[in-house]
Amino acid sequence: MIGIFDSGLGGLTVVKQLKKHFPQTSFYYLGDTQRVPYGTRSVKTIRQFAKENTLFLVGKKVDLIIVACNTVSAVGLDVVRKNSNVPVIGVIEPALRKARKLSKNNKIGLIGTRATVNSKAYKGITKRNHATLLIPLIEEGYLKKSNLKPFFEMYLKRFKGSVDTLILGCTHYPIIKTSIQKYLGKNVKLVDPAQEVVKEVSKFLKKDKKQKEKYYLTDLNERFLKIAKDFLGYSIGNKTEKVNL
Amino acid sequence: MIGIFDSGLGGLTVVKQLKKHFPQTSFYYLGDTQRVPYGTRSVKTIRQFAKENTLFLVGKKVDLIIVACNTVSAVGLDVVRKNSNVPVIGVIEPALRKARKLSKNNKIGLIGTRATVNSKAYKGITKRNHATLLIPLIEEGYLKKSNLKPFFEMYLKRFKGSVDTLILGCTHYPIIKTSIQKYLGKNVKLVDPAQEVVKEVSKFLKKDKKQKEKYYLTDLNERFLKIAKDFLGYSIGNKTEKVNL
Repeated sequence: MIGIFDSGLGGLTVVKQLKKHFPQTSFYYLGDTQRVPYGTRSVKTIRQFAKENTLFLVGKKVDLIIVACNTVSAVGLDVVRKNSNVPVIGVIEPALRKARKLSKNNKIGLIGTRATVNSKAYKGITKRNHATLLIPLIEEGYLKKSNLKPFFEMYLKRFKGSVDTLILGCTHYPIIKTSIQKYLGKNVKLVDPAQEVVKEVSKFLKKDKKQKEKYYLTDLNERFLKIAKDFLGYSIGNKTEKVNL
Repeated sequence: MIGIFDSGLGGLTVVKQLKKHFPQTSFYYLGDTQRVPYGTRSVKTIRQFAKENTLFLVGKKVDLIIVACNTVSAVGLDVVRKNSNVPVIGVIEPALRKARKLSKNNKIGLIGTRATVNSKAYKGITKRNHATLLIPLIEEGYLKKSNLKPFFEMYLKRFKGSVDTLILGCTHYPIIKTSIQKYLGKNVKLVDPAQEVVKEVSKFLKKDKKQKEKYYLTDLNERFLKIAKDFLGYSIGNKTEKVNL
């Protein structure tokens, strides 16, 4: 049984990849919808949240933990490891590996939350910039390319000509990957950590006879279910449970 | 001693008004910066947070509680009253009273968080609309009128010609009051609940010999201190304490 956790619903992009490549895999998903977003909070608080998420999944007796959240992967992966005795996979190393493979000039860019880009976790990055507002914009479905243009100017323009590879270091960004690609042009390759982390997982997988999936959320309302559907492409309504950490 | 609480830092707009009109007043401010924003979460969760905030201030032996948060005032004021035995003032009634006084055709509009506009707390509203994205935009300092234009088109256009008074039902909105006023034109009067709630408080006030103020925050980082300064106009750095609820 795989345990996946995220600050909220963004980590469902990892679930989507997992189900695409390994549809027979059983997993629990924990989304801390009561305290999302993490990326603007202090490192100390994020590490506390990381611990609580980990202990919840340990209590569910998972065999592997995937930290789908870039922010926790960046500032709290050691906390997850310390509080569990199963393999732990974060999104950063797989993304970095892919970026190094793709880049021809070794000039790699990173966008993410403030906590992610301020951390030292992403090594060897040429240029980094937070792209905070893209997250609520995506959650609110403000997705038209013309709408996003001023925000791309603000957050992405600086990467044009300065890097040939950009890591989308927050689970939300892949939702607007096509628009980002069009804005940056073909000379910049994009890395979606969700796709890379799933490859990492493959060596641990067994085919389950009876596939099981469950979504534990610390807060639950209609809007969260709608966002989940937007992220996953299907409804999770009957597989959810509200929990306290 | 007055206790003021808010989901985060937005309630500092109430503090600003309080200090402007009654500079000698002592108060504790509690900002739940660890779990902000409230306005997108479920009613059940918001009511739980309201209870925890109230019990914290009750523990500090305050004589009066001001709920600076529109969302809690809209869906959890009864919870605050039930868990305290001091007078409780929310922002909704004072704002509604002012709106009814200002309006000539009794057509009143309301913008706020989803939880606020979906609640039944604001009575006799002609037109209501959430304005969710204005909140992170303001927190990120994305304040230029030209930048905000597309969001005003999305959230505010419908009020033009249909109401003569608009309640700014989230603590953040007064920060861009001038831009909203310019967009809507002189025919729409704006109500800032922070200004009204402070008038309500006046009857409870005593002049303190030794004015005291303290800011309890559930999460604390440089960014929060910067936002606080933007909201208040001065730094609160040496008067803060991180607390757990």
